[in-house]
Amino acid sequence: MGRWEPNARGRLERAAAELYVERGFERTTVAEISRRAGLTERTFFRHFTDKREVLFAGSVTLEEQCAGAVAAAPDGASPMDATAAALSTAARLLDESGEHVRQRRTVIDANAELRERELVKLASLSLALAEALRRRDVDDPTAELTAEIAVAVLKVAVGRWTNGPVERPMGELLDDCLDVLRALLAGRGAGQPRGPVRRRVAWRVPSRSRARALGPPGSAW
Amino acid sequence: MGRWEPNARGRLERAAAELYVERGFERTTVAEISRRAGLTERTFFRHFTDKREVLFAGSVTLEEQCAGAVAAAPDGASPMDATAAALSTAARLLDESGEHVRQRRTVIDANAELRERELVKLASLSLALAEALRRRDVDDPTAELTAEIAVAVLKVAVGRWTNGPVERPMGELLDDCLDVLRALLAGRGAGQPRGPVRRRVAWRVPSRSRARALGPPGSAW
Repeated sequence: MGRWEPNARGRLERAAAELYVERGFERTTVAEISRRAGLTERTFFRHFTDKREVLFAGSVTLEEQCAGAVAAAPDGASPMDATAAALSTAARLLDESGEHVRQRRTVIDANAELRERELVKLASLSLALAEALRRRDVDDPTAELTAEIAVAVLKVAVGRWTNGPVERPMGELLDDCLDVLRALLAGRGAGQPRGPVRRRVAWRVPSRSRARALGPPGSAW
Repeated sequence: MGRWEPNARGRLERAAAELYVERGFERTTVAEISRRAGLTERTFFRHFTDKREVLFAGSVTLEEQCAGAVAAAPDGASPMDATAAALSTAARLLDESGEHVRQRRTVIDANAELRERELVKLASLSLALAEALRRRDVDDPTAELTAEIAVAVLKVAVGRWTNGPVERPMGELLDDCLDVLRALLAGRGAGQPRGPVRRRVAWRVPSRSRARALGPPGSAW
C-alpha cells in the first residue's frame, strides 16, 4: 500500500480537468494526470477505475447529498420545498468548486461519449430524487415529475453558469430558472424579442378551460 | 435493388419489437427479424444500420414532427402554447402505435445500452424543441427550460402510459402531468399520502418573497 497522500482525490480531479482542457480528453493519459498531480499511477487507480470516471466521481457525491437534503427537509414540507433544499445543496457544492466545474463542462461538451455519460448521471440523479420524495409519501407522478423538473432546472442553470460571461452564484441562476418556469406556466413569455427592446406581453390568467380552448384538440397542456 | 415491399419499414419495426420482447434484444438477430417480417436481410439493411436503430428510427420522426409543430404554432402563441402543439403531436404519434410503443419501452427498460441511447434521443428532442422556440424569438433560458420541461412531461407521461394498468389516451396523461406540474409550482402537493385518504392541504399563494422566506438561505426555488 502506498503512503497516504493529502487530498489525492481532489488533486487528481483538478489535474485531470486541466489536462483535458489543455490537450483534449482522448489525448491525455493516466500517467500524465498522475504526474501533474504529483502522485503515482498506483494512487490514481486506488481512487478511480479509469480516466473517464475522474470526471464523474463528483456526481455520486452530488446525488447522495441532494437525496439526503430531500430526506432531511422538515415534515410537511411540500415536494417542491423538499426539492428546493436539494437544489440549494447542489448550488453550494457547485459554487465550492466553480473553476473545476467549468473545466469539466468544457471537456464533456466536446466529447459525445462523455455527454452520454453525463445524461446517464443526470437520469440517475432524477431517480434518486424521486425515490427520496416517495419516501416522504409523495405520490408517484408527483415524485417523478418534481425530480425531472429539478434536474431540468439544474441542467439549464449549470449550462448558463458555465457558459455565461458573468460569474454569478449558482443559487441566483437557479432562482432565475424557476422564475422563468413560473412565468411559463402562467402563460407569459410569448415571443419576447432577444434585443434590448421588449414588447410588453399581456399577462394571462392561467385557466385550464382557457388553455384547452387555446390549444388544438387534445392539447397536452 | 430488391423489389418494392409494401410498408417494409413498419413491418420490420413491429417484427423487431415483438422478437425483442419474446427473446430479449441481445439474443435476436437481424436474420430472425427479417424472417418474421417476411422480408430479406438486404431489405432490413436498406432501412436500418443495425438492430438497435430499429428501436430508434421513430424518434427521428417524433423529433421532426414536434419541432415542426412548434414552428407551425400561430404568431404570438406563448412558448408554452407552441410547445403544447408539439406535445399534442407526440401524443397523436404515440397513440397511433400504442402496442409497439409499449413493447419498445419494455425492451429499452431491460437494457442499459438502450436506456442510454433513449436518453440521448430525448436530449436531442429537447435541443430540437429549444431551437424551434428560438426561431420564434423566444429568449435562450426560456427556450431551453420550456424544451426541458416538455421532455420531462413527455418522459413521465410515457412511463405511466406504458407501465400503467389502464389504457388511456396519451393526451390525457400529458394533461395529468401538467396539472401536477402546475400544482407543484403553486406549492401544493405536500406529503400527500398514497392511500385513499387524502389529507387536505392548505393552498398556498405562490409568492417569491414567501418562497424565499420558506427555503434555506440561497434557496433555489
